[in-house]
Amino acid sequence: MARATADRAKDRGALSPADHQRVVQALGPDAPDSPDSPALPQEPTPPVVVTSPQEFRTLLRSRAVALGPEATVGFVPTMGALHDGHGHLVRQARAENDLVAVSIFVNPLQFGPGEDLSRYPSDLPGDLARLTELGVDVVFAPAVEDMYPGGLPLVRVSSGELGNQLEGSSRPGHFDGVLTVVAKLFALVTGGHQVRAYFGQKDAQQLLIIQRMVRDLNVDVQICPVAIVRAPDGLALSSRNAYLNDDERAAALVLSRTLQELAQGAVTVEQARDAINVQQIGAGPDTVELDYLTVVDPQTLQPVDPVPGTLALVAARVGTTRLIDNHHL
Amino acid sequence: MARATADRAKDRGALSPADHQRVVQALGPDAPDSPDSPALPQEPTPPVVVTSPQEFRTLLRSRAVALGPEATVGFVPTMGALHDGHGHLVRQARAENDLVAVSIFVNPLQFGPGEDLSRYPSDLPGDLARLTELGVDVVFAPAVEDMYPGGLPLVRVSSGELGNQLEGSSRPGHFDGVLTVVAKLFALVTGGHQVRAYFGQKDAQQLLIIQRMVRDLNVDVQICPVAIVRAPDGLALSSRNAYLNDDERAAALVLSRTLQELAQGAVTVEQARDAINVQQIGAGPDTVELDYLTVVDPQTLQPVDPVPGTLALVAARVGTTRLIDNHHL
Repeated sequence: MARATADRAKDRGALSPADHQRVVQALGPDAPDSPDSPALPQEPTPPVVVTSPQEFRTLLRSRAVALGPEATVGFVPTMGALHDGHGHLVRQARAENDLVAVSIFVNPLQFGPGEDLSRYPSDLPGDLARLTELGVDVVFAPAVEDMYPGGLPLVRVSSGELGNQLEGSSRPGHFDGVLTVVAKLFALVTGGHQVRAYFGQKDAQQLLIIQRMVRDLNVDVQICPVAIVRAPDGLALSSRNAYLNDDERAAALVLSRTLQELAQGAVTVEQARDAINVQQIGAGPDTVELDYLTVVDPQTLQPVDPVPGTLALVAARVGTTRLIDNHHL
Repeated sequence: MARATADRAKDRGALSPADHQRVVQALGPDAPDSPDSPALPQEPTPPVVVTSPQEFRTLLRSRAVALGPEATVGFVPTMGALHDGHGHLVRQARAENDLVAVSIFVNPLQFGPGEDLSRYPSDLPGDLARLTELGVDVVFAPAVEDMYPGGLPLVRVSSGELGNQLEGSSRPGHFDGVLTVVAKLFALVTGGHQVRAYFGQKDAQQLLIIQRMVRDLNVDVQICPVAIVRAPDGLALSSRNAYLNDDERAAALVLSRTLQELAQGAVTVEQARDAINVQQIGAGPDTVELDYLTVVDPQTLQPVDPVPGTLALVAARVGTTRLIDNHHL
């Protein structure tokens, strides 16, 4: 409902002045005009940007209430530096929900010592331009002090054994950090309305662990997985691709190419590992350094034989950049 | 709003037939009649009892919606075997909220191996009679399989350093189990309406850790501490008091008596410890076995000098029963 609709509803007595006031407040200053308003230029309306958790909760809830009891919220948590992979998440959220909220927060809790927290790419103006084009309603872009006032949390969500293997074994504490911030964000976006949250399948282990958290902790959010988005040459899109120079980017293609060959049955797991391990970056001495390539049960992450329905996961360091990718067999 | 009120509102056009239907469904079959109904016996109406988490969430939410946007829910999580201490929690919840829900669930996750899970007291019929008298609206009494379908959760809430000391050092994993089940229950009772949750101050460390969870994970619940309820002789009420024989119960009084003397400045911490350690149970050889008696900062649980504003905590084994108590200095 746009402002003009609310005004007319009040004029004909369908909305009390108090309810009208509530609706107008809920719509907020930036609410787009509906098609039944007098003709206006169809510039995309920028999202409302909030930084306070409480304000984010209140805004989302009041907008959902104004849309009625069946209103749904699509939520896309991100660390910014948005690329077309995020674009797919947001487009799906936009297509399936009445309201769309995106969070942009580089969560220190999920970075280990020596990881790339300090150099993690950031481009808030570019992100907001992209989210405006995508028709996002609300952007939550808190500072670290907004999310962790008084310091890092003492109480955290623990991913247990699911989070200690694969990525977790190279990045101790990573998934506990992810779950803790996602639990906080979910606590802010839920509140009576239906919430769908969108996660990319590139981070397969993260997706599984978040699905498990929702189930284990009765979180009232529906998790919607979105397929990996790849560059034309096959590289899975990632904010961390921005770290790669041309030689590294070319070398990184071995990951997606090898997964594809594995999925087609053209190579064995051992051959796939060898193919990655011999990959050189440019003419220099550096190599692509394989962390793991393994085939797992997609529900338990336990290693299994590479049969249809299983999931091949790969992680490797290309230059100084750690990349992951995966492919369903 | 009772059924009769809803009917009259529909008759005079204040409620649409669809809204009337929604309200009637939300009120449920056991909704008490309001005073403006034709005279009926004023028997207390038993609470609606549900065992399914999803049903609990849906019922509470629909009842809150039917009561309007300002409806508040008071929630009292318990492990059953209710005593007057619980009665105080429920009475305060009843006085301060439109709807009152009580959960009864003996949570295996918070019991260690060798603890009293298998003999923990249970009296569902007695509990329901008590909750009927107290005017509770909804009782959530799930089985273990309802709360932990498919086995114990992999993803849990971790209490960190706050949960490793005092009770946590005698009961490893206890507070992670408490937080995990409380997080699940909170996820079920929240949903757009304001929620107040009531916890007794007897479990001082538990209360602090739950308050910290709410803050650290942005849980949308207001925690309401309720003062310790004591028997006339001073013993803090606890479901575990049911384990004590007469001699043990008499011996257990040394805990509350000593805390009181400490709070009055009549004894030092060291003298208080000695007073408990020399306590005999009846004529037998058993003694009251002190686990800890310490004075802490109520916010951090760090040991401090016994000055006003600090908190004295005690834990001891009396016979085979572990008891705790505390007193603000």
